[in-house]
Parts: sequence; C-alpha cells; structure tokens
Amino acid sequence: MKKENAFALLGNVVYSKDSRTLSIHKNSFLVCEGGIVRGVFSTLPDRYKGIEIKQHKDNLIIPALYDLHTHAPQYTFCGTGMDEELVEWLRTHTYAEEEKYADAEYARAAYTDFVNELTRGATARACVFATVHTDATLTLMQMLENSGLVTMVGRVNMDRNAPESLIDSSADEAYLRTRSWICDSLARFKRTRPILTPRFIPTCSDELMQKLGELQREFSLAVQSHLSENKAEIEWVRRLCPDASCYADAYKRFGLFGDGVPTVMAHCVHPSETEFEMMLSSDITVAHCPASNMNLASGIAPVSKYVDSGIKVGLGTDVGAGQDLSMLRAVTDAVQASKLLYCFTEGDTRKISLNEAFYLATAGSGSFFGKCGSFDEGYEFDALVLDDSSLATARDMSVKERLERSFYLERRLKIKEKYVCGKQIF
Amino acid sequence: MKKENAFALLGNVVYSKDSRTLSIHKNSFLVCEGGIVRGVFSTLPDRYKGIEIKQHKDNLIIPALYDLHTHAPQYTFCGTGMDEELVEWLRTHTYAEEEKYADAEYARAAYTDFVNELTRGATARACVFATVHTDATLTLMQMLENSGLVTMVGRVNMDRNAPESLIDSSADEAYLRTRSWICDSLARFKRTRPILTPRFIPTCSDELMQKLGELQREFSLAVQSHLSENKAEIEWVRRLCPDASCYADAYKRFGLFGDGVPTVMAHCVHPSETEFEMMLSSDITVAHCPASNMNLASGIAPVSKYVDSGIKVGLGTDVGAGQDLSMLRAVTDAVQASKLLYCFTEGDTRKISLNEAFYLATAGSGSFFGKCGSFDEGYEFDALVLDDSSLATARDMSVKERLERSFYLERRLKIKEKYVCGKQIF
Repeated sequence: MKKENAFALLGNVVYSKDSRTLSIHKNSFLVCEGGIVRGVFSTLPDRYKGIEIKQHKDNLIIPALYDLHTHAPQYTFCGTGMDEELVEWLRTHTYAEEEKYADAEYARAAYTDFVNELTRGATARACVFATVHTDATLTLMQMLENSGLVTMVGRVNMDRNAPESLIDSSADEAYLRTRSWICDSLARFKRTRPILTPRFIPTCSDELMQKLGELQREFSLAVQSHLSENKAEIEWVRRLCPDASCYADAYKRFGLFGDGVPTVMAHCVHPSETEFEMMLSSDITVAHCPASNMNLASGIAPVSKYVDSGIKVGLGTDVGAGQDLSMLRAVTDAVQASKLLYCFTEGDTRKISLNEAFYLATAGSGSFFGKCGSFDEGYEFDALVLDDSSLATARDMSVKERLERSFYLERRLKIKEKYVCGKQIF
Repeated sequence: MKKENAFALLGNVVYSKDSRTLSIHKNSFLVCEGGIVRGVFSTLPDRYKGIEIKQHKDNLIIPALYDLHTHAPQYTFCGTGMDEELVEWLRTHTYAEEEKYADAEYARAAYTDFVNELTRGATARACVFATVHTDATLTLMQMLENSGLVTMVGRVNMDRNAPESLIDSSADEAYLRTRSWICDSLARFKRTRPILTPRFIPTCSDELMQKLGELQREFSLAVQSHLSENKAEIEWVRRLCPDASCYADAYKRFGLFGDGVPTVMAHCVHPSETEFEMMLSSDITVAHCPASNMNLASGIAPVSKYVDSGIKVGLGTDVGAGQDLSMLRAVTDAVQASKLLYCFTEGDTRKISLNEAFYLATAGSGSFFGKCGSFDEGYEFDALVLDDSSLATARDMSVKERLERSFYLERRLKIKEKYVCGKQIF
C-alpha cells in the first residue's frame, strides 16, 4: 500500500541519544509519516517501499532547533547598544523601541523582518515575547502562523516601572485586554499559541500577577518570564517583594511558576539556594541565553548544575540582548560560557560539551513543545538538512566532527532544507 | 596633473580616532595614492580631480583587520575537538595534524584552504605559525605572497616535549635549518616575512632559545610565541625553568622578549605581577585571542588592564584553538569576554566597548606591522568595503550602529571589497 503522507530523507542522520551521546547513522533513511518520525533505517523497511526518497547524499540531517526565549520587537536593534547592563539597557534601548509597535505599519514592517529571519534559520519552534500592543501582537502571530513554524507568543504584561505607553493602566485593564487577546489567538491560530507573559516581577504588580494567575487557570496556558538575570534586578525584586522568599517565589505565589503549569524562565544566572530548590521541585524549564548574559554582563548561568540536578534546560537566543537569532550560535555560546564559568568557579561547575549543548537545543528545549527534538520513533518531525560542503578541508572528517564544525562555523554553513511537523519550510 | 596611482573610495568612512572614539565621515572620499592613505574628504580636493572614484554609496568603509596570532596548519580541524585544555589538546589534536605537513601534497592542499579563507575574510595582515617543516612552510609563504596579503610567517621551532617528527633533533640542527629557511624567505618574498617562532617554552630547550636569540640578532627579525595561556602550562614552565623569574623571563633572558625586538606574545591570560611589569617595560605586543581562551577553558586575559597601563594589545583568532579565521568575530568575542571577566573580577577589570575592540583589531594589531590600522594621512591603505544591506531592519540606524551590527552579525555581512597596501584583493 502506497503511503501518501510519508517520505524519507536519505543522508547522514545525527541526533542525541541522551544528553551526552550522539546517535549517528551514516547514509540512512529518516522516515516521516503524518508529520511524525517513524524511525531511522539503514535500509528502507518493506512497509515504506514506494514512498518519496529525498536524496541528500553526504549531507547531515539533524533535528531542528528550538529557541526557548526571544523578543520579536527587539530584532530591529539586535547587535547594537550593548554598553549597559539590564535595567539601564531596558530603559535606554528596549522600551524606546517597543513603543514604536503602537504604530501598525511599523509593527508590520519590523515583524516581517523578524519572521523572515527566524524562518530562514535553524529554529523550528520558539517562545516569543511581543509587546503590550494587542494588534501588533496578533499581526506577529498571523505572520508566524503563515511561516509554518510552531510558536508560543506572548502579549507582554506590565503595569508599573515602565513607560506609560507600554503598560496597562490597571490590573483589571490588563486582565480584560489579555483575555480578549487570548480568545482571539485561540480562535485564529493553530500553530501559534498564546503564552502568558508577565515581563518580569519589577514591572508587574501583585494585582496584575493575581489576574494573570486567574487567566492561567481559566485557559490552562503556559507561562514565560525572566528570572534572576542580573544582580541589580534581583536586589530590586527583593525590595519590591519583601514577602517573597526569593525571586522565583514572587511568581510561584500566584501560580505562575511550574507545579503543573508549563513554565519557561529565561536566564536564571544567579539562583539562590532556595530558588534552586524551588526550580527543581516546581519542574520549570530554564531558557539558558548565553549570548545575552555576556552582552549585558549578567554573568553565566550554572547550567551544568541545573542539568546534573534534573532541572530542565533548553537554550534561547534572547534577541535583542542576544545579538543573533541563530540557534546554531547559541549552542557554541553555551559551550564556551560553561568553560569560562568552570574556570572562574574553580571546578564547582562542569564544562558543557558540544554534544550536551546540541542536546539542550534539540531535546532539551524541545520538551517544552511536546515530543520534540529527537528522531526516535513517535517524535514530531522537525528536521534540518545541512550542507557543510563549504566547510570541508584537506583533512578527512568524521560525521561527529562535521556536526561540531557545522555549529562552530555556522557562519559558512548552508541550511539546505528545513522541516517542521513534517512540512517542508524551505 | 592626473595622478595615475591614486583613487578614492566614496562611502561612509569609519575608523578609530583613538582607542575609544570613532571617526565617522558620511558620504566621504577616502583617498589612496601609492598605497598610502592621503586623507578622508567630504569634497574631493582639487589636487585629486580626475582620479578614479569607486562609488560605494551607502556602504561602510573601514580599515581592514589584522590577525596577530593564528596557526595555518590547524585550519584543517578548527571547530572540532575542543573538549580538552591546552596541554592535552596539543597532544591529542594538534601535533597529530601538524605531522601531516611532512607530506608536501597534503601541505599544499591544506594551506590552499587556509590561504583562500584568510584572503576572502576581513584580514589584511597576519602573524602566522606554520610547522617545523621547511618545505611546507615555504609553500605556505609562496601562497600568502601570491594572495596579496601581508604576513609574517614562522617555521615553528621545538626540540623537546613534542613528537619526534615535529622537532629538530638538536639546537644546532634547528639553527641551521631555521637560518637556511630565513635566507630563502628573505630572498624570495616581499610581502611575506619570516618571523622567529619558538613554539613555547615547554617545547624549547635553553640551547635552542640561545640559538634563536643569535638568529634574531643576525637578521633583526620579529619574534612570535605564546605566554601564560593556561595554568597547567605556566606551572610546567616554572618546573622547566626554575631560574626564570616568570614565564616571560624565560624568553627575555635569551633576547626574545621585546626591548627593541618586535615581539608578539599570544594569550597572556594569567600574568604574574612580575610578568605584567616585564611586558610593560619590554614593550611587547599582546595578541589577545578570546575565542581560543574560551574554547580551551584557559580563562580571560585582563585586556583592560593591559590597555590602561600602556601595554600594546591587538587581537588574534588563534585558529585552530579559536574556531574561526574571522577577525570580525574576534572583535565581538573580545567585548563579550571582557564583560564576563568584569563580572567575575567584581569590577577589578573594565568592560571593553565595541569601539575599543574595533581599535584593537585595527590600530592595535596594526602597529605591529608598521603604520597600519587608521585612515589618518600617511597610513598604509588597508581597507574593507562592507555591504551591510542584508542587516537592515525597519528601524533607522546610525553609521555607528551599523558598524556595531556589522561585527555582531558578521555571519550575514558581505565584505564587498578588500584592499591591502592600496591593492584591491577582491
């Protein structure tokens, strides 16, 4: 029987067997059926005879990457203005830019650039911050829906400590506007889901957090926010929330920090011991954003400690504090950052290997989106075909070495094809 | 009178006025005559009427960059095998590869790749390590000569603590072979100069260093080597040279560390106080290689302290411990590394700005090659024309912001033209 909705990619298939080990299948068939991975085979099983074979010869075929944290409106200025640290940077660069998204025309032009760049890169799925502007956020979501990528997008909630034009004037107003945006999004989009997005504690009053907690319970939405990124920010939260046992608790007491609520927290650079325990017990996911943490001089998150203790970790680009939407770059940034942290903590943390960072960007980030980030049978079919021929040198390379180089030298790599949910994006 | 050997580039000219300040000239003429910069003009002076004008409209025109430290034979494996630290990495990855350059055919193929990549990048001049193999080193030098780039290339000297096939069997043999290679190089090449290259103290006996000192004095050559890169390496040097007051002194006592001898020392990550003083008083140049120092978990060099105390600093890619020959990338790596060092030294060091790292890669590195790295009148004409149109977003950008983005997003930048000594390379 001919399987109409099945095909196979033929090439060198590489994915993570576990967090430290690669599963490498030279010249093998990666079979997709109905958007789902059906396995990797050295010879095509009889039941798949006759399906379309896409011949990629010596190319590498890897799971597509997942960006757990990025800001769509900041794409316009990424790679500029990184001479300040977080709090000052928000004030001088970020808010000034985000105010422009009140203008529908500007938003459309800017979000077109963002979606185009995200689409042509290695990212298959992403958690995305928009701005407070509902119309612009829906415009962004429509573009993302059309792109074929799978995303969770948040209308950003703030009601204090930010410019008037970027906040809702009361918790009630925030509730009504956010609720209406959630209903619109759920009705209009399939691949583009709303995610509750309190920006971070300093810009969200207790009343606002209370209301967002109510919305979470009404719609069973996932939550994204920022946690313990910068020392001055953490001190600010301590002053704003004297009753919270730690920064994480300022989310947790409103039901917006794990415990069955899918929650991704960006950064987590400076966790207190209490916070570390709370992250673990609440089962949240950390979005490690190494480039951003370097650029804003925030520090380096203790990723190896998270991984070794069982806290879920994925990677994020955090554009615009991160300079680039490239998740390939995020992988090597994570490796390099972990090596420096290892140097400066005198062995109290561990170096992350390329294999491990590859795992974080695929299966690590992927678990936040469901069964994603592996080519084991039953996973969603999100894949990249990498043409690394421009990286070849006189030296023979193993597939593992070619994978490493594809990340380290991504500047010169060609992403030949990209698939999300079994659908070819390009 | 028509000036036959003069031309002008017309566009947005940007270079460093000093270590912190950019000199920005929108829509201006950068005039070259006889390979020398004659100035930047908003209207072309009468004396240059009639010279060829190369119209680059809105493009950026910046000084080309200078790579103070890279290893040509390691280009074949850059971006792989970075799970070890220095001493182990040399043993398991580097020496095994360098042994292959005994084979003339392999050397030719591998060095072709290296020279092609160096030529198409942002680098105008470079200090390059080859291997012990004289023939292969001359092959590399011939290719570099043909490329139009300006380089200093070293036959690598070792006589201990490395595989038999990579060392000279005695200091006398090293002397004779190195001397013969120097004479050949000086006779054959114009743009490609020999530079004395003791690999590093652990692989060079006192006798060898003595002989290299003699060669330095005979030919007045520049010197390149490695200094205080890794803590285990520094400890090794301490054991090998109990009479040297510090690692730097192990070079200095043989006349191979500044004091009128142009000397570039790579890394300088962990200087002792004595060493710091010696670096300053001997007037050596530091080749700061941030990517390499991350990849091999060496640490981060205290660049701001060097700069602020008056020690000369430039940047290097250190391929293959650095993953990429891109000097554009080295600039942002230097910025990011300095921010992390700032975090971990609690303010004992200073964050390096993009402007400052740009200066280090142009005028900073450039001073090692002569009057290079500026568009002030009288400098050698080494220039890049950058087409950053693919980086444009909906937001208006200043020239300064476009320069920043050209470095941070170099992955997507197009180097449109490159000039070295007034000659167009592409």
